[in-house]
Amino acid sequence: MDHPALDLSLDAAALTARLVDFRSESGDEKALADAIEAELRKLPHLTVDRHGNNVVARTNLGRAERVVLAGHIDTVPIADNVPSRLDENGILWGCGTSDMKSGVAVQLRVAATVPEPNRDLTFVFYDNEEVAAHLNGLGHVAEAHPDWLAGDFAILLEPSEGEVEGGCQGTLRVLLRTTGERAHSARSWMGSNAVHAAAPILARLAAYEPRRPVVDGLEYHEGLNAVRIEGGVANNVIPDECTVTVNFRYAPDRTPEEALAHVREIFTDCGVTELIVDDQSGGARPGLDHPAAVAFMAAVGGTARPKFGWTDVARFSALGVPAVNYGPGDPLYAHKRDEHVDTAKITHCEERLRAWLTA
Amino acid sequence: MDHPALDLSLDAAALTARLVDFRSESGDEKALADAIEAELRKLPHLTVDRHGNNVVARTNLGRAERVVLAGHIDTVPIADNVPSRLDENGILWGCGTSDMKSGVAVQLRVAATVPEPNRDLTFVFYDNEEVAAHLNGLGHVAEAHPDWLAGDFAILLEPSEGEVEGGCQGTLRVLLRTTGERAHSARSWMGSNAVHAAAPILARLAAYEPRRPVVDGLEYHEGLNAVRIEGGVANNVIPDECTVTVNFRYAPDRTPEEALAHVREIFTDCGVTELIVDDQSGGARPGLDHPAAVAFMAAVGGTARPKFGWTDVARFSALGVPAVNYGPGDPLYAHKRDEHVDTAKITHCEERLRAWLTA
Repeated sequence: MDHPALDLSLDAAALTARLVDFRSESGDEKALADAIEAELRKLPHLTVDRHGNNVVARTNLGRAERVVLAGHIDTVPIADNVPSRLDENGILWGCGTSDMKSGVAVQLRVAATVPEPNRDLTFVFYDNEEVAAHLNGLGHVAEAHPDWLAGDFAILLEPSEGEVEGGCQGTLRVLLRTTGERAHSARSWMGSNAVHAAAPILARLAAYEPRRPVVDGLEYHEGLNAVRIEGGVANNVIPDECTVTVNFRYAPDRTPEEALAHVREIFTDCGVTELIVDDQSGGARPGLDHPAAVAFMAAVGGTARPKFGWTDVARFSALGVPAVNYGPGDPLYAHKRDEHVDTAKITHCEERLRAWLTA
Repeated sequence: MDHPALDLSLDAAALTARLVDFRSESGDEKALADAIEAELRKLPHLTVDRHGNNVVARTNLGRAERVVLAGHIDTVPIADNVPSRLDENGILWGCGTSDMKSGVAVQLRVAATVPEPNRDLTFVFYDNEEVAAHLNGLGHVAEAHPDWLAGDFAILLEPSEGEVEGGCQGTLRVLLRTTGERAHSARSWMGSNAVHAAAPILARLAAYEPRRPVVDGLEYHEGLNAVRIEGGVANNVIPDECTVTVNFRYAPDRTPEEALAHVREIFTDCGVTELIVDDQSGGARPGLDHPAAVAFMAAVGGTARPKFGWTDVARFSALGVPAVNYGPGDPLYAHKRDEHVDTAKITHCEERLRAWLTA
């Protein structure tokens, strides 16, 4: 397939259109990674490293602080929405316009046009963010070359409508099993009903009062929910097993261990035969009290808001790097056929970052 | 397939073995119905009618009472347990030995050897009892020729270990739906959880105290149970629907309408959005106070016990004919690979019935 040439002298909005037209569905990022690597290697102020289809470029100016600007280069499957289309209102339509080739364009523009930033910069372009966690390129880099991701502060250019979204909540999924004994339902007293045994579990869930703690100045909002319940053998059999799948979304002032301990405590003495941890990803504190973050907030303006969903900022947090989401896209349109981005927001984001890094 | 010849001069135990070897899984009863019809037509004291693979034979002696002896001629699928095998302890092994070719053998023996019973007799042999209710041959005869089933008292030769089991409990199945509103589980407060909404339903079920009413001298035992629960969309979505399937087994002193009203009342004010009646089959009173039943009990001896599961006695009950189960098989081994019957029980059952009908 022919790909459009990347041209880092274009403004970020025009470059976004080029990037959108450069198809890179998850698993098919190699050509785009090659093109990005080639353009970055033309820039003498950057050293460039590559791991798989992940490209990392860095300034080495000996500044007191280092800031990481990161973005994934893959998109969800294209849905008849490539090539991109710019309408008369300055809205750019197409797969990846919002999530997150507009953010990648901003990264590339800063890389190309800010050769002497006031903080050392690390640019990370990674693959497979839209698919399974074990494929995520940022995770692979963190595993193989954690030093490449070192820094004092990280910005993920994920869609956040040009507002700063701080940290992210953790997510824990557990399976709660109750057990009983099968019997014909005509003689139910010969058995023991595992679905009835789940009554206290649902009662605890229904009565649960989630916390809304303020962490580093942002108010999070927890949630403890059954996302699934299953039990039953046949219409005339007393069920001997019932499973409630519970998802706990927790604020970043709890560690994963504390979150699990809390869930275990909630479901104490309510007939759970077995509690199985099915998934666990820790949250990330917003880190907005860090000097680099304070300066960043002052430069980009607006009011930071908490991020409720789990994002890759948690990977930086696990490496000891406070991180936020800040990008031009609109998350409401991510993954949708009518995905789009306001090009004015792309320009604004590019300008704000450049202003901060050259002040 | 060659079938063994039926020979009504054999005793009921030997005849049972012949019937077991005469394969007749549900849906495949025609050959056996043909053979039974042919043998019965040889008996001058009986008039014989046929509807599909259902055969009905009657004496017409003008007696004051008429008794119906009924049995199904189909079996569940054979599981490497045909032909039959008689062991040294007089136990006959094979598919249908208990449920219920031993009962059918007793019917045939009484038909052949009691030409002048003290009560008029109706013998019913029907198909498709082991499958869906709408296929049941007794139901088809009741629909097409209810007069063929007329009588003062009916005995189903279903396995009851030679004890009289009176009446049967009714069964009602309802689906209880709760509804909510989907949302991402990271922002659960934007939605409403339908699984949590089912908490009061499970609490009512868990707290339910079933009645054990005495009806016509027999103690029944009700039961209200969830037999299934289902809810969930995806592991990160707040479920917008949950369905609890509830089975109410009720004593025969309630009508189906009363049973449904009771279930509606139990689940009042606990968040049920919709209650759907999925299945409803009324019970049958034991009818043991009828003079024919009293004489029968006196003749066969033992103590009548209640039947908890729903059986075809309810069809007779619906036609105004009190009915009981009384057969030589052991219900615990019905439908099992190691199904068997004690031939002594077959002989005993045959003798007791003959004694009662010739006294």
